[in-house]
Amino acid sequence: MHETKERLLLAGLQLMLQRGYNATGIQDLLADTGIPKGSFYHHFESKEQFTLQALRLYSANVHATLDEALGSGQIPPLERVRGFFHNVERSYAKEGYLGCFFGALGQELSGTSEVFRLEIEGCLMGIVDRIAACLEEARTAGDLPATTDCTQMANVLTNCWEGAALRTRLRREPEPLHDVLDFFFRSAVRT
Amino acid sequence: MHETKERLLLAGLQLMLQRGYNATGIQDLLADTGIPKGSFYHHFESKEQFTLQALRLYSANVHATLDEALGSGQIPPLERVRGFFHNVERSYAKEGYLGCFFGALGQELSGTSEVFRLEIEGCLMGIVDRIAACLEEARTAGDLPATTDCTQMANVLTNCWEGAALRTRLRREPEPLHDVLDFFFRSAVRT
Repeated sequence: MHETKERLLLAGLQLMLQRGYNATGIQDLLADTGIPKGSFYHHFESKEQFTLQALRLYSANVHATLDEALGSGQIPPLERVRGFFHNVERSYAKEGYLGCFFGALGQELSGTSEVFRLEIEGCLMGIVDRIAACLEEARTAGDLPATTDCTQMANVLTNCWEGAALRTRLRREPEPLHDVLDFFFRSAVRT
Repeated sequence: MHETKERLLLAGLQLMLQRGYNATGIQDLLADTGIPKGSFYHHFESKEQFTLQALRLYSANVHATLDEALGSGQIPPLERVRGFFHNVERSYAKEGYLGCFFGALGQELSGTSEVFRLEIEGCLMGIVDRIAACLEEARTAGDLPATTDCTQMANVLTNCWEGAALRTRLRREPEPLHDVLDFFFRSAVRT
């Protein structure tokens, strides 16, 4: 990816995680990065297109982090899933507990834009599918009850995490994340 | 409450649940209601003040619904809590599964406004405190393990619900709500 394009996307992600989509102006982004307007429109045709690309970059990073965390076969599958969320928590901490970009934009834009609604649902499904495969490994290994519906449990975990991420954003502290993970992993093994 | 004021607040809640705060203009609200601008500014000094009052009206309704659902002493306490969320689901269904106003505005505004961040956290704490008291009743009755931390569990339930409400908004269907409630109530009794 062109360096200017990547700088714009990374700066845009940071700005929009803080302020949301509508409250972030292209002007703010240009002022933040010192990149001229012509350069922005050379790489992106509109703010919407820019934001979709920022979402895809964020999503690709999350999915790559997941693949790495879940692929380490030395560690039991449930610990790999939990380890992934600990990584995410560390990145939330660095940002001052602003929560999840999918949740932020999902709430703000999914009522008015079918494009964003479907895009963000797809990003979350990419998380759910990966976690479901790892839970399936845990089920096969006998770490989860044989009756566990792994796709359903992966959805429940992802959704509970999203709710905890909202609460983290409201409280600016990590406790909601810990409490949801503790509850999920304590409970799932007995479901 | 003055009838014009209430009409504005109710119409504003509906518009903002769909579009969010920044994408909702006072002009849209006036066009929707046929109420003149001067009348809006007679009742509210600004869009922010209007939205705070809309939030408080929404919150007062949620808290009153909760008090009614949790106060019916004939029904076992855990069923009362679950019954409340079924009521909420019915109202989501009527709106086309747009999710929760606290989650929507909490995500959009809590990164830029301390006023909204603290207000919305307070609204959620009003839910958590009420649910915690009812879980405490369940614990005392032996319907929850004696070791249950009822405030923590009420936070977990509220946060998981918020995540499910986001997912409902993204998918426009109720399954995420059902799955989270099933998981929570199946698990909590054994925690």
